[in-house]
Amino acid sequence: MNHGVERVGDGSGPAGGWVSSRPRAERARRVADVLRQQIGEGGFGGGRLPDERALGRQLGASRNAVREALGLLRREGLITRRRGVGTTVVMPKYGQGLDRLAGLAEALAGHGTVTNQVRVAEEVAVLPDAVAARLEVPAEAGGVRLERVRWLNGLPLSLDTSYLPADVGAAVLAGDLVGRDVFGLIEEATGCRLGRADVVVHAVCADPDTAALLGIPAGAAVFALERLTRLTDGRAVDTESIHVRADRMTLRATLQRGLPPAAT
Amino acid sequence: MNHGVERVGDGSGPAGGWVSSRPRAERARRVADVLRQQIGEGGFGGGRLPDERALGRQLGASRNAVREALGLLRREGLITRRRGVGTTVVMPKYGQGLDRLAGLAEALAGHGTVTNQVRVAEEVAVLPDAVAARLEVPAEAGGVRLERVRWLNGLPLSLDTSYLPADVGAAVLAGDLVGRDVFGLIEEATGCRLGRADVVVHAVCADPDTAALLGIPAGAAVFALERLTRLTDGRAVDTESIHVRADRMTLRATLQRGLPPAAT
Repeated sequence: MNHGVERVGDGSGPAGGWVSSRPRAERARRVADVLRQQIGEGGFGGGRLPDERALGRQLGASRNAVREALGLLRREGLITRRRGVGTTVVMPKYGQGLDRLAGLAEALAGHGTVTNQVRVAEEVAVLPDAVAARLEVPAEAGGVRLERVRWLNGLPLSLDTSYLPADVGAAVLAGDLVGRDVFGLIEEATGCRLGRADVVVHAVCADPDTAALLGIPAGAAVFALERLTRLTDGRAVDTESIHVRADRMTLRATLQRGLPPAAT
Repeated sequence: MNHGVERVGDGSGPAGGWVSSRPRAERARRVADVLRQQIGEGGFGGGRLPDERALGRQLGASRNAVREALGLLRREGLITRRRGVGTTVVMPKYGQGLDRLAGLAEALAGHGTVTNQVRVAEEVAVLPDAVAARLEVPAEAGGVRLERVRWLNGLPLSLDTSYLPADVGAAVLAGDLVGRDVFGLIEEATGCRLGRADVVVHAVCADPDTAALLGIPAGAAVFALERLTRLTDGRAVDTESIHVRADRMTLRATLQRGLPPAAT
């Protein structure tokens, strides 16, 4: 049995060596990973977690490790802990699929009605160079800029900033920006279905402004998405920067193994 | 012109009203979003950013807003700033696709060789209940637990914890855990191709143990992925918890609009 750096635990415990000589922080991380996933799957009926002692038994972990793991999940905004009440799940996270191009309201259609606080909705005479390059238009062609905080069931979930080309944008400005996804408005404005979008997902600590707008502590983890959306004919019609609360949303996908990519 | 809460900027500036009466934090957030994306696209040849004044001109932002935005990106680990040297991109982020099921070494094949620091590789007599449920086996059937820190070009990129069923796991334990993706080892061990995986992506602030293992400050944003992988016949063979450095990796996908999901 070797408790050195490269190999830990002897596999004989009820949970595969979680009760080991490793530091508490390591055990807490492992317990937190299991609990985060159980919470995500609705594994605690009624949203109430067992007490520390019972959780420790189920997970083969010490009560100290469980307490530290619950502290991590509390700081993530997943649970609340109150003396005399116990540990409860704040709410299940909403999931947005990365399998298919959909706006937030479409993606969360089963969960309630998304409404939007419109912070910016305006024509822009000259686009920033980086934005013009993404939209594949000259900066002088101008465009439309939108910034909206998107709410569901009393919660601000994401902060979306869009730039659109001038013609598409003008029609979108005339639409219902409070109640609708931009995607639907673009499709109505152009009479074309959207085709595809390239998405890059970052995880960052929320800057102070994003944190204030989304009602989370500065420094909390958020997803920062960059999304460039095109019509079926390939025309770029929407370049977005989206900050999504990671304490209330997950991104989900079902990945297929498929064939290995051809050698290049 | 209305500079109230609901609508800002007048669109007449070179960057669509970024020079406005809004607080500096808001302008810094917008500048940081544009710069993060430009950096991600390799937009600064040689990795050197222009000075604050020039960036401000390009983005239509004040020098104060630019300085604050650069501070945000520095804290994200994207750039370094040194007096006399200027602002430089630390390195381009690696991208892992969410379009297709692939191990890290496969996904980053063009960037170098992934090597793994094996922290745990052991048989487990009794699986934790939550793990057994994911793998769809009785807890008493036992299994195999792996924990590896995955390095590329001298950087620890991710911390992967896997549980595998006993038979598959035993064969994987005999494989090259230092040099290989678990996916390839599973396919060799079973003689079956992997089929699909369900992935849930969280963004969290790194717990102290994850931070220490990945060489980042505690509290830095990381992706926390939960992935359950099945063979083509549907058998669950690998349930993972993966912490990925978000300062060095992005997740990428190309999404198709497709048809709206059928009403249920």
